Amino acid sequence: MSGFFQTHKATLDKALNASRTREYFSPYPEVASGKIYGESARDDGQKAFQALLGKEYVIDGHPGNGPSIGLETSPYGVELNVKYPNPNPPQLIAAAQAAEKDWAKATIEERVGVCLEILHRLNARSFEMAHAVSHTTGQAFMMAFQAGGPHAQDRGLEALAYAYAEMTRTPATAIWTKPQGKHDPLVLEKIYRVVPRGLALVIGCATFPTWNSYPGLFASLATGNATIVKPHPAAILPLALTVSIGREVVREAGFNPDVLLLAVDEPGAEITKTLVTDPSVRIVDFTGSNAFGTWVRTHAGTDTQVYTEEAGVNSIVVASTDNFRGMCSNIAFSLSLYSGQMCTAPQNIYVPQSGIETEDGHRSFDEVADGIRNAVDKLLSDPERAANVCGALASAATAERVRAATKLGDILRTSTPIDTMGDARTATPLILKITDQNSKVHEHEHFGPISFVIATRNVEDAIHAASSLAAQKGAITAAIYATDDTVVDDAADAFAQAGVNLSVNLTGGIFVNQSAAFSDYHVTGANPAGNACLSDAAFVANRFRIATTRRHKAA
Amino acid sequence: MSGFFQTHKATLDKALNASRTREYFSPYPEVASGKIYGESARDDGQKAFQALLGKEYVIDGHPGNGPSIGLETSPYGVELNVKYPNPNPPQLIAAAQAAEKDWAKATIEERVGVCLEILHRLNARSFEMAHAVSHTTGQAFMMAFQAGGPHAQDRGLEALAYAYAEMTRTPATAIWTKPQGKHDPLVLEKIYRVVPRGLALVIGCATFPTWNSYPGLFASLATGNATIVKPHPAAILPLALTVSIGREVVREAGFNPDVLLLAVDEPGAEITKTLVTDPSVRIVDFTGSNAFGTWVRTHAGTDTQVYTEEAGVNSIVVASTDNFRGMCSNIAFSLSLYSGQMCTAPQNIYVPQSGIETEDGHRSFDEVADGIRNAVDKLLSDPERAANVCGALASAATAERVRAATKLGDILRTSTPIDTMGDARTATPLILKITDQNSKVHEHEHFGPISFVIATRNVEDAIHAASSLAAQKGAITAAIYATDDTVVDDAADAFAQAGVNLSVNLTGGIFVNQSAAFSDYHVTGANPAGNACLSDAAFVANRFRIATTRRHKAA
Repeated sequence: MSGFFQTHKATLDKALNASRTREYFSPYPEVASGKIYGESARDDGQKAFQALLGKEYVIDGHPGNGPSIGLETSPYGVELNVKYPNPNPPQLIAAAQAAEKDWAKATIEERVGVCLEILHRLNARSFEMAHAVSHTTGQAFMMAFQAGGPHAQDRGLEALAYAYAEMTRTPATAIWTKPQGKHDPLVLEKIYRVVPRGLALVIGCATFPTWNSYPGLFASLATGNATIVKPHPAAILPLALTVSIGREVVREAGFNPDVLLLAVDEPGAEITKTLVTDPSVRIVDFTGSNAFGTWVRTHAGTDTQVYTEEAGVNSIVVASTDNFRGMCSNIAFSLSLYSGQMCTAPQNIYVPQSGIETEDGHRSFDEVADGIRNAVDKLLSDPERAANVCGALASAATAERVRAATKLGDILRTSTPIDTMGDARTATPLILKITDQNSKVHEHEHFGPISFVIATRNVEDAIHAASSLAAQKGAITAAIYATDDTVVDDAADAFAQAGVNLSVNLTGGIFVNQSAAFSDYHVTGANPAGNACLSDAAFVANRFRIATTRRHKAA
Repeated sequence: MSGFFQTHKATLDKALNASRTREYFSPYPEVASGKIYGESARDDGQKAFQALLGKEYVIDGHPGNGPSIGLETSPYGVELNVKYPNPNPPQLIAAAQAAEKDWAKATIEERVGVCLEILHRLNARSFEMAHAVSHTTGQAFMMAFQAGGPHAQDRGLEALAYAYAEMTRTPATAIWTKPQGKHDPLVLEKIYRVVPRGLALVIGCATFPTWNSYPGLFASLATGNATIVKPHPAAILPLALTVSIGREVVREAGFNPDVLLLAVDEPGAEITKTLVTDPSVRIVDFTGSNAFGTWVRTHAGTDTQVYTEEAGVNSIVVASTDNFRGMCSNIAFSLSLYSGQMCTAPQNIYVPQSGIETEDGHRSFDEVADGIRNAVDKLLSDPERAANVCGALASAATAERVRAATKLGDILRTSTPIDTMGDARTATPLILKITDQNSKVHEHEHFGPISFVIATRNVEDAIHAASSLAAQKGAITAAIYATDDTVVDDAADAFAQAGVNLSVNLTGGIFVNQSAAFSDYHVTGANPAGNACLSDAAFVANRFRIATTRRHKAA
């Protein structure tokens, strides 16, 4: 069984090292190339995806109850009509409980080996996964490949490495020898074992079904907890694929595959609350809205450990720059990528009302705003590039939100559909101009391609407003453009105190939206945007306990 | 400032090593000897303690509000009448908030250095502390010295070492270099900083005011959180001493001493609930009853991290032995030590109704019960030894509980006062005989010197009953006596699943009650006896977060 562990141990070791050094590491190539994934991988992936459409998605041996269900729709207008097993919560709990005991008694290497092999097989099916992610979330294909495939796998491996490090931090045995002066020492032999916390529930989101679910999934599974994966009803297929591959590996390793289960539901008949409040569920990983996140944190049992990524209001402070064009292009890409539907996308861009200094001298507030608008226009002027950057809107509610938001300020840039994308639900960035003193509309999240260029009295006010809002409403990212180190330092202090990671003067190929596994602590967990971080020791350490057996040993 | 860190770095390094190897380590000598602590230490400690009685306990610069308060009474009948500063909760919160910002910005080494120096100074005052602990808790002097002094300091250092390891697990900076094929790599410079979670509250208990408080106190303080220490109204002095010494070191290091505050109250006018529910309190460490523990876990904010040690029902299963006398003596000491008031003391002793096999052949159930009773009688036959082992009862409620418990079964051993202890509130172990099938009285905690020898159908039933009860009601310790390895293995499985540490065949100088820092994971956190373990990574990792600043760096 530990064959899997041996096979992938080198990858695990590199992951452990990277999580310590925080240097660049990615074992799962993000380049969707036939040279890496095999010449036929692209075609095979597409065919495999298409073969799933309009059918029952069979998961071998998975509990079920009556007719299969599922109401996913593609934001690209493609008919999906995939149907999944329909177990009710008591069936899921019972199946997990029947399977968990043997899984808990497996060795650390057996469990971690299984998880490594699951990631390996997921990686091989990244093209198929890309289609599944793209057609449920609306992500453009290339983004769906990267964020839904290799980057999600990286995040899964990262959590797995933390879990392994934490479980192996305690030796399996120890000899404890206490001196007794002139007498013989007292000697105890101790055996330490990992005791899983209990059933785990992973609640997926509609926009990043794999990226946001893999850390909790692999952390819980590796530490011995049977895990129920509850996809968002709009993005089931990527997690059905994941659970299916996972169960296959678990079974091959000689364990009951019901340690990994899929809990599908349909809009209006969600089973999430029933699962969250089940007394046997002891771990919940949730990604979603603040409203439902609050519900989960409030209603889960007091002994249930809840890890959330919710939402917040991400800000950029523009104080000054020595690369105006680079700044505007960088911001434009961040606003456009996946139509502002990333949890890391900026919403508020604070600019002093008196304008800023640049390499070409002073620019007024309006010139800065226009610079950003023009950069978005330029980026999206080629419809094919626009489609590849923006993708589609995951939900009709977001499209409606964009329409309604036009009233919230002076329109700097109008949102339009992307012509060449046919039936797809699309919207380019809507950008509004407002003044800090006259408006409160920017002080809550407007999910989707909606952003505000906000006139503030000065840079200090901008930093204060953005960081206070982060502390109060949450934020996952922040950025500042400033040529003055004192301003950068002040911002670093203010945003750190608000628990937000800060990107400084990004003008090249790195964007505030991006968060790299093994190096960037995604979310932090220190403000209302989420109570946990992907990944750190806190994310894994409470998923298991150590129980000791001790006895005398002859000295 | 990092002078303190340099001074004590060798101690920290040894602590870090011991927490990994789980081998014996104790930097603070448990032997109350003049050779170690200085020839005059014993006298000096006693004088220092006596100088505190009947006076205001002045804590330099500590906030206060009106007349000083405090209603401690000594279980030994000595007049204490010590009065403490009386700040109200808003004053405490405000003072902590004013102090926390600079403390948060201190380096890891500055904060950990301060904590190491506090422990060092506490150690030097272990005799004074022993009197303070003994006269508030009722512990015999020698136990108060060890458990209230060096062993508590060991546990503080252990948590501190975990906190240091966790904070330094992330490098302060990293260079992240992502290859871009033929192009120049993307290079980011990242700076990581520790962001404290927020205000911390440590709620002490009446029996082990220092041992149970130090882990939370040092873990929170080291990770940058201003910490309010709320002693049990019956055991203030040991924590007043601690806070006083702590503030002295914090001030010497150049920080505002209000990062460490004392929240004193009196019975009937407790301020604990006000502090627990204050929205600025983000960490609570609680030791106490299940009833109040449940209240704390339920009423603390959903974003407040709560660590509890509550209570449970600890069991011993007697299946067989090759050292009957050693077993009985060992159990007798465990029942007698501090009159059964340790959270680790056994309450239920399960013995098969058909008796057990020993090195001298079969012993009936009654012979086993009599053996245990006789061993207690023998241990306590010398009144001076009885006083040193049993100490006094911390509360009148426990004395009353012992009186009322005589009706709960057949009396195997009567509880009596200890003659030579005068006015002290004392009670030797009450031991009752019951039958598993006919009684439920043993299925909840009877705090104090009350235990049950329980006839069970067989060994399997005994293991099942004890481990099920642990899973359901909580347990901090478990023990088994068995010569058959299969029985031991079954018990190890059953108790591990219930999240209880198991001691096997203890017959010598180690007792089930004892839990050694750096080696034994006290409590586990995996059953209702507590949601946290002293100490592991989970105990420290959620007390802070990492916030990152990243920017381009030329390749």
